[in-house]
Amino acid sequence: MSTTSSTLAPELAVSDWFNTPAPLTLSALRGRPVFIHSFQLLCPGCVSESIPQVQRIERIFGHTDLQVIGIHTVFEHHAAMTPVTLKAFLHEYRIKHPVGVDFADERSDTPITMQRFGLRGTPSSILIGRDGYIVHQVFGVEEDLAIGARIAMALSARIPDITATTTSRDDDGCADGRCELPSQSAA
Amino acid sequence: MSTTSSTLAPELAVSDWFNTPAPLTLSALRGRPVFIHSFQLLCPGCVSESIPQVQRIERIFGHTDLQVIGIHTVFEHHAAMTPVTLKAFLHEYRIKHPVGVDFADERSDTPITMQRFGLRGTPSSILIGRDGYIVHQVFGVEEDLAIGARIAMALSARIPDITATTTSRDDDGCADGRCELPSQSAA
Amino acid sequence: MSTTSSTLAPELAVSDWFNTPAPLTLSALRGRPVFIHSFQLLCPGCVSESIPQVQRIERIFGHTDLQVIGIHTVFEHHAAMTPVTLKAFLHEYRIKHPVGVDFADERSDTPITMQRFGLRGTPSSILIGRDGYIVHQVFGVEEDLAIGARIAMALSARIPDITATTTSRDDDGCADGRCELPSQSAA
Amino acid sequence: MSTTSSTLAPELAVSDWFNTPAPLTLSALRGRPVFIHSFQLLCPGCVSESIPQVQRIERIFGHTDLQVIGIHTVFEHHAAMTPVTLKAFLHEYRIKHPVGVDFADERSDTPITMQRFGLRGTPSSILIGRDGYIVHQVFGVEEDLAIGARIAMALSARIPDITATTTSRDDDGCADGRCELPSQSAA
Repeated sequence: MSTTSSTLAPELAVSDWFNTPAPLTLSALRGRPVFIHSFQLLCPGCVSESIPQVQRIERIFGHTDLQVIGIHTVFEHHAAMTPVTLKAFLHEYRIKHPVGVDFADERSDTPITMQRFGLRGTPSSILIGRDGYIVHQVFGVEEDLAIGARIAMALSARIPDITATTTSRDDDGCADGRCELPSQSAA
Repeated sequence: MSTTSSTLAPELAVSDWFNTPAPLTLSALRGRPVFIHSFQLLCPGCVSESIPQVQRIERIFGHTDLQVIGIHTVFEHHAAMTPVTLKAFLHEYRIKHPVGVDFADERSDTPITMQRFGLRGTPSSILIGRDGYIVHQVFGVEEDLAIGARIAMALSARIPDITATTTSRDDDGCADGRCELPSQSAA
Repeated sequence: MSTTSSTLAPELAVSDWFNTPAPLTLSALRGRPVFIHSFQLLCPGCVSESIPQVQRIERIFGHTDLQVIGIHTVFEHHAAMTPVTLKAFLHEYRIKHPVGVDFADERSDTPITMQRFGLRGTPSSILIGRDGYIVHQVFGVEEDLAIGARIAMALSARIPDITATTTSRDDDGCADGRCELPSQSAA
Repeated sequence: MSTTSSTLAPELAVSDWFNTPAPLTLSALRGRPVFIHSFQLLCPGCVSESIPQVQRIERIFGHTDLQVIGIHTVFEHHAAMTPVTLKAFLHEYRIKHPVGVDFADERSDTPITMQRFGLRGTPSSILIGRDGYIVHQVFGVEEDLAIGARIAMALSARIPDITATTTSRDDDGCADGRCELPSQSAA
């Protein structure tokens, strides 16, 4: 059973980070599976369903090297969901994992990370394998059984010849022509 | 079974109204039972429990003359829960009943309406009888069976000789959002 | 608001009682509101929804004179839902209120009480007023808010000139434990 | 990550099967992962929690070669939970996977399969790997994420050299609670 797709995950574009002493990058996380949760604090399905699910993921897989990351991908009501409100939201909902504010695109309502991953809306989730390739990406909330199965496979996957490829990816950030980090990270 | 306490409801103090063409006052609503829901948009228990309950109340008692009112009683994270954020919140959560922003007290984190009713926190609910007296006030979320029972009793209560007393209450200054009942007129 | 229909509740027909030292009759309960829960122990909706609801009703209205009664109205899988199985079921589900086994009709799969009330299936509930008339009868599970409201109205209803009317009802045979509709009470 | 313990699963002891044209044995299922759900039809936690979970497992892993088996492990209220009642229960709860009635032990309330696996009560679940060894056994209901992860690992495990050893396992019959394969075929 293959646990990776043929799409290398693009890099995150984040303007503010919460719950982490230093910014995170997917390239620096290469070698670990990463679960990205894309949400908006005023998205009802995020609050009632996907955030509790992410907190269950943290609890169940907390002893592994899975990295959970939230990305606040605001694409509507921008004035209503500022970093000030997000900070209070994270406090009130007891969200402890790193959360990044998706980098606003001054030419679009859709922020940069959201554009790069081609996310359709919130909540969305992205599971990235140890090799940096996207294992699974979905709009909406999936069942815990399915997510648990996918994370287990991503965790068990041996890291292939990652040293060489990571280097070339690191050079321009994201290699193989499927990650246009420099050209998109405007603003 | 008595459906009224001996406490006349103090007047609301509201700086902004949503979902209503004109400001509401409890004195103008005298004669109808009123269900007030006190919440904060970043209060998890409000979002997951009391707001859905209020929406059930609206659905079940929508054919009656019960007036449902939300009051956004922000007593923490003031910069995070502004009227701009509240407006988007009401839109996203499909809240259609009138919602007022509790009037900020420049000398206290606790806003004015919250002070007047002596609310301990959010969510809270207050059921006011046709005569303007508080039937029930509680911090937290009660069971639907109990709330349904209380609202039914409040609805069925006949309006006593309120004409005269209402006038005198109005004289006390229950208007323009600055209604502080000095005498707490007992029945 | 009227809390009674124009239909007098027919008498129960029960072959076995659990959780009560003596058989119950609606005629003997005249003057108290009665909530009847019709269920089958292998009915999924009964187990997951209506039985928990009845237990909430018991808790919320336990301080009133509401009488809660369960009737095991088996109309299918008769060999699978015997009194022996029912007894263990009541024990395992911690059901403490009186439960009667609906009297089997040897000419029909539908038992006698179920026939008398014209129940369509399980779960069903019947709310009977203090005067013995049916307030509300429904197939399926209603929302707690609505049930709470109806029970409150039934509880608050004053018993009207019941002595006289009961006498005329007695002529029909629905009183003092002798309310067996002659045409239906076979077996 | 190891997905197997060092305990070979004992054989099932079943007196009646439902939802299968022929009896199932774990030895014949060697090579496939097996999820065994131990339940009683009058066990509230089984009905409300573990049975819905097993049905989710069937749906999520229905495209794999995971075999789901229910075992009706009655250890109390024996007269109340007969095969007649079980058959109606399976029908009403739309349970489609094979379900076996645990073989009664005339000297004990605890049936044979339950004894062999050392189950503490219901609900319990047992996950058996492709090699016939117990991956995980638990009393109570675990979270879907954890079960999904374990099943994924059991599914992905390669089948070791089991052809020869399976034969010898069949030969010694796996009966009387002493079904310990002498060879303990290591991978």
